[in-house]
Amino acid sequence: MKTAVLLEPETFELQDRPRPSAGPNDVLVAVRDVGICGSDVHYYEHGRIGDYVVENPLVLGHESAGEVVEVGENVTSLGVGDRVALEPGVPCRRCSHCKHGNYHLCEEVEFMATPPHDGAFTEYVSWPADFAYKLPDTVSTTEGALCEPLSVGIHACRRGDVGTGDTVLVTGAGPIGLMIMEAARAAGAGDIIVTDVVDEKLSFARERGADLAVNVADGDLESAVEDFTDGVGADVVVEASGATPSIESTLDVVRRGGTVVLVGLASEATVPFDVLDIIDNELDVRGSFRYKNTYPVAIDLLADGVVDVAGIVEFESSLEDIDDAFQRAREPNVIKGMVTF
Amino acid sequence: MKTAVLLEPETFELQDRPRPSAGPNDVLVAVRDVGICGSDVHYYEHGRIGDYVVENPLVLGHESAGEVVEVGENVTSLGVGDRVALEPGVPCRRCSHCKHGNYHLCEEVEFMATPPHDGAFTEYVSWPADFAYKLPDTVSTTEGALCEPLSVGIHACRRGDVGTGDTVLVTGAGPIGLMIMEAARAAGAGDIIVTDVVDEKLSFARERGADLAVNVADGDLESAVEDFTDGVGADVVVEASGATPSIESTLDVVRRGGTVVLVGLASEATVPFDVLDIIDNELDVRGSFRYKNTYPVAIDLLADGVVDVAGIVEFESSLEDIDDAFQRAREPNVIKGMVTF
Amino acid sequence: MKTAVLLEPETFELQDRPRPSAGPNDVLVAVRDVGICGSDVHYYEHGRIGDYVVENPLVLGHESAGEVVEVGENVTSLGVGDRVALEPGVPCRRCSHCKHGNYHLCEEVEFMATPPHDGAFTEYVSWPADFAYKLPDTVSTTEGALCEPLSVGIHACRRGDVGTGDTVLVTGAGPIGLMIMEAARAAGAGDIIVTDVVDEKLSFARERGADLAVNVADGDLESAVEDFTDGVGADVVVEASGATPSIESTLDVVRRGGTVVLVGLASEATVPFDVLDIIDNELDVRGSFRYKNTYPVAIDLLADGVVDVAGIVEFESSLEDIDDAFQRAREPNVIKGMVTF
Amino acid sequence: MKTAVLLEPETFELQDRPRPSAGPNDVLVAVRDVGICGSDVHYYEHGRIGDYVVENPLVLGHESAGEVVEVGENVTSLGVGDRVALEPGVPCRRCSHCKHGNYHLCEEVEFMATPPHDGAFTEYVSWPADFAYKLPDTVSTTEGALCEPLSVGIHACRRGDVGTGDTVLVTGAGPIGLMIMEAARAAGAGDIIVTDVVDEKLSFARERGADLAVNVADGDLESAVEDFTDGVGADVVVEASGATPSIESTLDVVRRGGTVVLVGLASEATVPFDVLDIIDNELDVRGSFRYKNTYPVAIDLLADGVVDVAGIVEFESSLEDIDDAFQRAREPNVIKGMVTF
Repeated sequence: MKTAVLLEPETFELQDRPRPSAGPNDVLVAVRDVGICGSDVHYYEHGRIGDYVVENPLVLGHESAGEVVEVGENVTSLGVGDRVALEPGVPCRRCSHCKHGNYHLCEEVEFMATPPHDGAFTEYVSWPADFAYKLPDTVSTTEGALCEPLSVGIHACRRGDVGTGDTVLVTGAGPIGLMIMEAARAAGAGDIIVTDVVDEKLSFARERGADLAVNVADGDLESAVEDFTDGVGADVVVEASGATPSIESTLDVVRRGGTVVLVGLASEATVPFDVLDIIDNELDVRGSFRYKNTYPVAIDLLADGVVDVAGIVEFESSLEDIDDAFQRAREPNVIKGMVTF
Repeated sequence: MKTAVLLEPETFELQDRPRPSAGPNDVLVAVRDVGICGSDVHYYEHGRIGDYVVENPLVLGHESAGEVVEVGENVTSLGVGDRVALEPGVPCRRCSHCKHGNYHLCEEVEFMATPPHDGAFTEYVSWPADFAYKLPDTVSTTEGALCEPLSVGIHACRRGDVGTGDTVLVTGAGPIGLMIMEAARAAGAGDIIVTDVVDEKLSFARERGADLAVNVADGDLESAVEDFTDGVGADVVVEASGATPSIESTLDVVRRGGTVVLVGLASEATVPFDVLDIIDNELDVRGSFRYKNTYPVAIDLLADGVVDVAGIVEFESSLEDIDDAFQRAREPNVIKGMVTF
Repeated sequence: MKTAVLLEPETFELQDRPRPSAGPNDVLVAVRDVGICGSDVHYYEHGRIGDYVVENPLVLGHESAGEVVEVGENVTSLGVGDRVALEPGVPCRRCSHCKHGNYHLCEEVEFMATPPHDGAFTEYVSWPADFAYKLPDTVSTTEGALCEPLSVGIHACRRGDVGTGDTVLVTGAGPIGLMIMEAARAAGAGDIIVTDVVDEKLSFARERGADLAVNVADGDLESAVEDFTDGVGADVVVEASGATPSIESTLDVVRRGGTVVLVGLASEATVPFDVLDIIDNELDVRGSFRYKNTYPVAIDLLADGVVDVAGIVEFESSLEDIDDAFQRAREPNVIKGMVTF
Repeated sequence: MKTAVLLEPETFELQDRPRPSAGPNDVLVAVRDVGICGSDVHYYEHGRIGDYVVENPLVLGHESAGEVVEVGENVTSLGVGDRVALEPGVPCRRCSHCKHGNYHLCEEVEFMATPPHDGAFTEYVSWPADFAYKLPDTVSTTEGALCEPLSVGIHACRRGDVGTGDTVLVTGAGPIGLMIMEAARAAGAGDIIVTDVVDEKLSFARERGADLAVNVADGDLESAVEDFTDGVGADVVVEASGATPSIESTLDVVRRGGTVVLVGLASEATVPFDVLDIIDNELDVRGSFRYKNTYPVAIDLLADGVVDVAGIVEFESSLEDIDDAFQRAREPNVIKGMVTF
């Protein structure tokens, strides 16, 4: 089977690899769509993300969906021909985190496209059946692949306890920021405020329903939020940019007793926090790591037409053109590219 | 009535003020015991705490208890002769925070000994009856006054969701740190780890039941915690020192998926936080501000003999000797002084 | 001012009463719209609801909105000319329930149209300003009055922790059932199932977005839910009918680990519960009493056009015609009548 | 290996069965102690519990601990010679309940001594290593076996959100009621009230620290609780008797806004519930099924000496004398018997 392998930064090779077969609890999936994520681009450019270093050839891609072509002997939940979205992280199922339902925190999780685990830019993937979620007829495999970034949004909103009528501020209008917006709206958020430093992204966010969009390169976010919320502040702030000034500003725009959720991977080692603000306003600052138990909800939301994920796809490419696709995906204004099979 | 008034830093004057009478929903309380808190000492030394500036003569003291001598016409819950602990902050009862039960976040709270509101270093205080909590016979007014710092501990443990069997790490073994220890034990904490930079304080904490006490001036906290917890980390870390290195270290000693509660007022404007740690380990960092709905629980714990607060009192003084008392209270190793009437 | 007073069952008298003036923390409101609630009709027909007996002439009506015509001296949040919705229950603000934010459980709450407290079928009401919520221009006073039943729905969904993608089953398609549907959708519910015994009500519910509507007079609810949910059951069941068979059935249609919320006042003294079901499936059965902290959210939802309350109004009447209005409101198929001024 | 097999009601046979070996993720455990649970006695007497029918010979016993004698090839957490407590239910690890951390609700759980799964009255058991919990030196295997009923108590208290200072009422002073008492105290409960109909059991509960013990055969529980709690009621009521009058009474003795936890298997098909009580007082009624994630906490509590489980053991027996042991265990006043190897 054809497989795009990252040999070294900026160098893919299309290899022919043996097609795997499904283990007893697995399904073999013919991949149909794989999204290009910022982390894929980062590995492509730098060969590493923090402590995760690409030391051996690696297959990227962890936003994927496809069609079941073979079913393991113990599998009853899926059949050949079913279209499925693949949740990319498979935990050990035995540690304390797993038993507590926090399987995303499992220290032994095997996560697609995170060294040394290969991802989905390949024709076939064998995957545990319980991490392959059947798509109804009304949900495309493109949408199935995008359950992954949508899951990041759903999980972040859960971490923030976003509830009916809440004012939610999302910093960063890239694909994750947009997915957080979608998830926040689905969770009942009232007003949604979005920030970015690129006007085009803010316009796009506005078109997709942001009630206020602030360019923080030239505007004063704190006073904009104060005006918009009658001096109260946002109930929940979800930080999706990773930019230091943006992370710092979260404490200034959240309301007293409110919650800040940190999602965007910080670009610097540390960020100065005003600890007195956290104490005096009794804030909650919560990290949000990947997701857990989100795929069924994501698929329900897509089936019900409550969220729009396909609208963020700006271009499609083939596996053969993966180099071009990554070149294009790294442009600052591009939101999401897909590789389709 | 005799009242100790702070005229300017380091200068008390014993004034004779008119004795108030109880409003319709109030009780008039003859003060019996008032604890000297670190914030009192700070106002005494510097005339301010952050934005709170002593611009006019101020009566300090907010850890108080006494005896009811007069009862307002609407008051049925208390009678003359009842001994009561006074919760020092009275909210507006009408704002959104108050209605949500977060009355401690009320922007219009009137808090004893916080400019411009006078405190309890005086013979009589008129106070809303619902913020005066009756003490049972087995609880002294000294203990009643110390319901205040105990409340800080109870609230911090609630903010940290301390539960049965949790390993709790408390940074700082001053009076607040010790009260957090007591509250954590009462909430079911298993092992308790305490840190400080003063060996005497650590010894005292050990005597009071700390399972591990680490002097962070010369020990490596991270490896000590790693050893003690078999590499897992503490379930809950409560920061009670306000020292920058201590605040920073919380993220290194809390377990994956664990909670950090910030209580100690930071001595510097900002503290560098490792945001990637917060995200990758999906931590919760929560401010803890004063307390709410803690006095009834604090009194129950004292009545049941579950916690020890009186044991932290190192000296008693009279109102006449308040200058001496504050001189003594500012010594670094003194834990708690009381003014008794 | 003209006031409709219930003298005895089925007998209103239009009296001329003195117009009150606003106390220091109150606003005087010229009433514009008052909904006729099932409890009003019940008092009208029977002179009592359970232990609440109409012993003296009583003014009914607790779903109300109007215009501020006078403002108490301490009130800064509202001004003359503001249109407001009135939350009908005012608590003591001092008991343990109030301090914990559960002011709806306050034993001393004064609730409109609950003996001995008069309600809103009158030209003017003086009301605490913090229980009078300003309506934006886009929300009518009819909608403002209907914030009351909408609040019942919002609170029930909060009690049930309705979240994104949940399948919610509502038993009873009367005004409360419909408001629960609206609140559930606003809270992110995926599929909504509704039951009733009247086909017209089910059709109406279907028109308003129910995904499945089951007439339990002639259908088997348990198998219908099993089919619809692939054998899983509903995540949350909200009982809004008060009928014994409906209450009993909740335990059969909720999923393992799911939640049943009881809202509809039971028509019989006790209902037989299958306790083994509750234990083996580890269910939560939660009462839901009135509401708390819902009006701001209700108004936000109305302003954002997320919920529809006006669509349930079937007729309007004047205060002079209140007898006719109540005759009409007691017909079984009528959903909601309003008295407008 | 010797194994006690229940052939039909009241008939054990001591069989010689082949000793199993440890699968790759399992440990082989030489059983040391097995508690006799009420459910064992029930199977022994009646051959069934509800829908669970003993159709084939069955090995009883699910409260067990022993010593590791063999370790599967993948197991690193345990070694030969380790003493372990065995959690008797092993879930599928793949269903939605398992992934959400509610593995105790897994429909495919294999639970010791529940037909068709054999239990622990045998010399050797092979068991998944992650459900075998290492005991520290200070915890005996008798205590290890009793982690099972203690787990029932811990889980029930978690379901009831028992917190610092709560007044907890436990109905039924049998082994489960006593374990709930222990767990409630460990969770910070203030006052504990216990009921039963047998004076000896109440005396024993009083000796073990119950603050109030009420014989409901001849006393009025509601007024006793009202007196003891100053008219407020218990914060949390945990029903551990299964008796209909006791289940009914829970709603009368819990405070407004309080929580009832149902643990005791109801002896009748349905119990009449006063639904208006549940609604008007906004109660939570929660089933509690077995337990999850309790063993590590149970062992910590035992190691810290916070709870006493060994004190409930009234007699020990050998596997050879299992018939006598069951005859004795069925006597009404016997609290707990153990079979030791």
